Amino acid sequence: MIIVMKAGATKKERDEVLKRIRELGYKPHVIHGSTRDVIGAIGDERGKAVLQKVESMHGVENVLPILQPYKLASKELKKEASLVRVNDQVCIGGQQLIVMAGPCSVESEEQIIESAIAVKAAGAQMLRGGAFKPRTSPYSFQGMEEEGLKLLAKAREVTGLPFVTEVINPETAELVAEYSDMLQIGARNAQNFALLKKVGQLKRPVLLKRGMSMTIQEFLMSAEYIMSEGNQSVILCERGIRTFETATRNTLDLSAIPVLKGKTHLPVVIDPSHGTGNHHYVAPMCYAAVAAGADGLMVEVHPDPENASSDGAQSLKPVKFAAMMEKLKLFAAAAGRTL
Amino acid sequence: MIIVMKAGATKKERDEVLKRIRELGYKPHVIHGSTRDVIGAIGDERGKAVLQKVESMHGVENVLPILQPYKLASKELKKEASLVRVNDQVCIGGQQLIVMAGPCSVESEEQIIESAIAVKAAGAQMLRGGAFKPRTSPYSFQGMEEEGLKLLAKAREVTGLPFVTEVINPETAELVAEYSDMLQIGARNAQNFALLKKVGQLKRPVLLKRGMSMTIQEFLMSAEYIMSEGNQSVILCERGIRTFETATRNTLDLSAIPVLKGKTHLPVVIDPSHGTGNHHYVAPMCYAAVAAGADGLMVEVHPDPENASSDGAQSLKPVKFAAMMEKLKLFAAAAGRTL
Amino acid sequence: MIIVMKAGATKKERDEVLKRIRELGYKPHVIHGSTRDVIGAIGDERGKAVLQKVESMHGVENVLPILQPYKLASKELKKEASLVRVNDQVCIGGQQLIVMAGPCSVESEEQIIESAIAVKAAGAQMLRGGAFKPRTSPYSFQGMEEEGLKLLAKAREVTGLPFVTEVINPETAELVAEYSDMLQIGARNAQNFALLKKVGQLKRPVLLKRGMSMTIQEFLMSAEYIMSEGNQSVILCERGIRTFETATRNTLDLSAIPVLKGKTHLPVVIDPSHGTGNHHYVAPMCYAAVAAGADGLMVEVHPDPENASSDGAQSLKPVKFAAMMEKLKLFAAAAGRTL
Amino acid sequence: MIIVMKAGATKKERDEVLKRIRELGYKPHVIHGSTRDVIGAIGDERGKAVLQKVESMHGVENVLPILQPYKLASKELKKEASLVRVNDQVCIGGQQLIVMAGPCSVESEEQIIESAIAVKAAGAQMLRGGAFKPRTSPYSFQGMEEEGLKLLAKAREVTGLPFVTEVINPETAELVAEYSDMLQIGARNAQNFALLKKVGQLKRPVLLKRGMSMTIQEFLMSAEYIMSEGNQSVILCERGIRTFETATRNTLDLSAIPVLKGKTHLPVVIDPSHGTGNHHYVAPMCYAAVAAGADGLMVEVHPDPENASSDGAQSLKPVKFAAMMEKLKLFAAAAGRTL
Repeated sequence: MIIVMKAGATKKERDEVLKRIRELGYKPHVIHGSTRDVIGAIGDERGKAVLQKVESMHGVENVLPILQPYKLASKELKKEASLVRVNDQVCIGGQQLIVMAGPCSVESEEQIIESAIAVKAAGAQMLRGGAFKPRTSPYSFQGMEEEGLKLLAKAREVTGLPFVTEVINPETAELVAEYSDMLQIGARNAQNFALLKKVGQLKRPVLLKRGMSMTIQEFLMSAEYIMSEGNQSVILCERGIRTFETATRNTLDLSAIPVLKGKTHLPVVIDPSHGTGNHHYVAPMCYAAVAAGADGLMVEVHPDPENASSDGAQSLKPVKFAAMMEKLKLFAAAAGRTL
Repeated sequence: MIIVMKAGATKKERDEVLKRIRELGYKPHVIHGSTRDVIGAIGDERGKAVLQKVESMHGVENVLPILQPYKLASKELKKEASLVRVNDQVCIGGQQLIVMAGPCSVESEEQIIESAIAVKAAGAQMLRGGAFKPRTSPYSFQGMEEEGLKLLAKAREVTGLPFVTEVINPETAELVAEYSDMLQIGARNAQNFALLKKVGQLKRPVLLKRGMSMTIQEFLMSAEYIMSEGNQSVILCERGIRTFETATRNTLDLSAIPVLKGKTHLPVVIDPSHGTGNHHYVAPMCYAAVAAGADGLMVEVHPDPENASSDGAQSLKPVKFAAMMEKLKLFAAAAGRTL
Repeated sequence: MIIVMKAGATKKERDEVLKRIRELGYKPHVIHGSTRDVIGAIGDERGKAVLQKVESMHGVENVLPILQPYKLASKELKKEASLVRVNDQVCIGGQQLIVMAGPCSVESEEQIIESAIAVKAAGAQMLRGGAFKPRTSPYSFQGMEEEGLKLLAKAREVTGLPFVTEVINPETAELVAEYSDMLQIGARNAQNFALLKKVGQLKRPVLLKRGMSMTIQEFLMSAEYIMSEGNQSVILCERGIRTFETATRNTLDLSAIPVLKGKTHLPVVIDPSHGTGNHHYVAPMCYAAVAAGADGLMVEVHPDPENASSDGAQSLKPVKFAAMMEKLKLFAAAAGRTL
Repeated sequence: MIIVMKAGATKKERDEVLKRIRELGYKPHVIHGSTRDVIGAIGDERGKAVLQKVESMHGVENVLPILQPYKLASKELKKEASLVRVNDQVCIGGQQLIVMAGPCSVESEEQIIESAIAVKAAGAQMLRGGAFKPRTSPYSFQGMEEEGLKLLAKAREVTGLPFVTEVINPETAELVAEYSDMLQIGARNAQNFALLKKVGQLKRPVLLKRGMSMTIQEFLMSAEYIMSEGNQSVILCERGIRTFETATRNTLDLSAIPVLKGKTHLPVVIDPSHGTGNHHYVAPMCYAAVAAGADGLMVEVHPDPENASSDGAQSLKPVKFAAMMEKLKLFAAAAGRTL
């Protein structure tokens, strides 16, 4: 922690800061500058509300943290990439690229089974589908709930594909975990800490979506919440951030891939469907994500997008998805990956 | 709903769209333009996933909604301003300006009672204080939980001030409602729909904070969630949005006041403490909020900010809060309000 | 300047950094931490591309600047507020609040004179009006150019009001300076450094608008460009920043007022017309700006907004402007200002 | 243009709007809805300040434009992709991927020639280098100006590589055009309309960078400025937009590639050096850009980044650039491109 004193700070103010730093268990170290003093405080600054206890003191201009506030998610703790296993069937974070595909919402037995068969045929290794849906409007379709989970399980029986589905409430988290192979935390719940703690106590891998206005650091802090409760199987999913641009629903931040790869050992997956909100842009962004080093993709596929209950505009038809997967193999190969 | 056809759309594509519109229960109306056709679809477009069912059709360039997606929160439904009453003690949305003040977190009996006495003496009509704290880091202080609620109740006993406190989990919402006079939904939970539904079923007024990257429309949709469950006592609280600027913790959007006043009958309150993140900027933003037409303020006050467990840098000391309240009276008077 | 070394940096890497720091004219100072070293480098870091010469070295994690990069605009250099005088008629930055009002564009002799008379009658001390217009579309009205300047001069003759008008090109800057009393740099040219240097060489006060995605620090750096060429008469004008919110044209950042007042001695003026883009929101934002401590306002007023050549939607009619000015006096008084 | 009337608008208000629409040369068409009327106005809405003349009328809620405001840049006008030729040597927008590489600034004869030789050896087809530099600080290195242009010309002589360099002032635009093969408009000047008009009159292809807070539509409007002056050889360059994220210098918006490809016939180039601001992220973003369909790349390469006068932290060393180019061939092949 570095404390920058104000240009005109008095000796008394500086001494107060030094005293406070020692009380907080740090070893202070003063650097006398030409216009101001700077104090280095040595010690672990994580897990304590230390910065603010100093930054509101008289004579202090600014306090700069040195360490990253996350530990378990950090590459400093664990250098090699983590592999997240789903039922000994699928392994995310390794050499093989993992594609999770399926409709936004489960709507009927026919729809989810047709989707599952189609995405499997095209090469996807996991099925996705929402049973509990977080919708901006209370008047929109809220999902089939437990009935949807049962249909997802049926689709798994038919195709053998494990599935990931969203959990939106601590009260129903265990129910969702019973049926599903992987839990998804949606962007709007990415800082719902009660929910993060809950899934941290469950025995299912968690796909954590980045919140719409979450920094990379906050994203890793939310992963840390899950991990600090005991669940180390966390997959990070970039799905677009909110910016001023309106030509796309969100702005897909693909540079998050190399940034995250530099900071954490957790696998990184990209969701270009929500990231762009437009099915025309999904395939190019899939190719780009793989080229940038993503470990996997999450893609919305619907047999009849025009009649989807949610997110039809960003869903691929099975035939387009299959064509995309075909071309994706070329990019996966260029990236040294198998698909 | 307006459907803009592509410049080169065929008659067949247009006819398909017309057919679909009729199937969805709307009356279509074609306007033949020089380069393209535009179709008006008459009917209530709220509460249905109608737009997307059309916008992914062949030949469609764009679908423009006409109506606002919220009803209960809308000024179209209810023209006069809503008054939200807290225990027949406080009324928010009327001629009197309401100030809620207190520490970010409850830390001890002494701290919360000292705070309550101080903010009451300075003229605040409500106490604020967090017992369940949503913190970015799992290693930060998470609040005193039920013990904190008890201390808030004690502070109320001593001072007579009703209090507002945050609810972060549907599982503990009823517990919080038992102790408190008003429930707060924090910015990070502003689209936690499970939580919104839950507080919509409770008998306590709700102070809903705007999410960090929430549009005004989404903000009103979250209010609509609470109202559609039966709880009409909702207060909207702007607390800063996330932008590129780093000189302040968030960018306080004071234009949200007149924008919201034009769209909804619900009261609007401003939180300059979180909005700026810096106690130096709190007083000017309080004055500005009142001048812009806010119905109330939420301000962090701490007897000893340098030792606060959270958000010390943005908390006012009691003496500064009292001075601010004194000057605020002048601006309240200029705005035609009492304090 | 603080250099944070990587956790695993070698002694050789650290020694290279120390050597480099000395070569660059700084005095290094090492703090040995438990997991990493931190190096303080004492010396003036402004005006040199020093940071980057260090931050790309092996073993360096991060370089943190300590000093602000601006000097002339800084409050550290000059503590008391600067007064910017326009023709010995108007003084901006003092106890009197200054209002500049008029149409977006000069359109005709009648229009500008009618506007000037109206804004003067309502209490404005300066006229505004565009002769050279920076328009997003090449097909939009580009302004009356020199003819417009002549009409502004005529309006000044009639009313005695000095005027401010925009300069958009170094090639015509002197022409604009000959006619006008104050030069305006628009938001889109706020980092047009060739233009900033040019107006820095002219003998007219400059109203510098903040760019749409400019941080406070960059804003002050643009002021520094003008000042470093010799022109100290700079007024900073906040006019809304670009965010994700679309309910307003821009998001007016009123917290910029106290932030700027803490960092610079230059006067701060607010433009709520561009800041909101909607005439309904202009009056409340004027009141709020004054309450927050603004030194002045820039307001668009047009005798016939529905037929304005530009920005009609955000222009006030003279009668509404007069009513606003009347109510503004109350807020000015509350803020300890005269109008 | 669609005019949405307010729910309670009177017949008189509607009739006034109809009258105004006819006066403006449009054919109005009323759709009577259940709660409000909607009016379609048929005619070319581009190049006229028509929208605002209607949207400030009584009874009007909203005016929605239908047409895109750009013509020459639009795919509606010209369906096939444009090829921009540089000296009959290089063709941008065709099957071959074009890479422009070199240092941020020209610093010396040795530096620029060494750079040119290195980037040519690695496969780049064009040299980049700044002679006139737009720098945020007036105290930073401002470029070698004409001397820098001469050195670029010398590097071209030695290597045969045509070069692109930035133009920052209409007064020196012709000088730059004399020496260089392609003109660059930087992000900070992307809405410097005086400069856009100037380069529109010159006989050199123009690489137009997207402004930091420019929407895709505004980006195309700036291209339209250049084209409307007669110069059709415009290349669009995405270089990162400004968002809340600070882990990267900007957020590189790769979805802009498919979005632009859907709206315009102009070639699209990506600059990952400015887009990320960190040399570690440049290679993955190059691969991603090509996978997403970019027509070319602009990459900063410096023989000695640690001693660069500007942007050293984002520059690749020649050996890393060569390795990137090698791997890039695989992605280019996957995308059906040659390099």
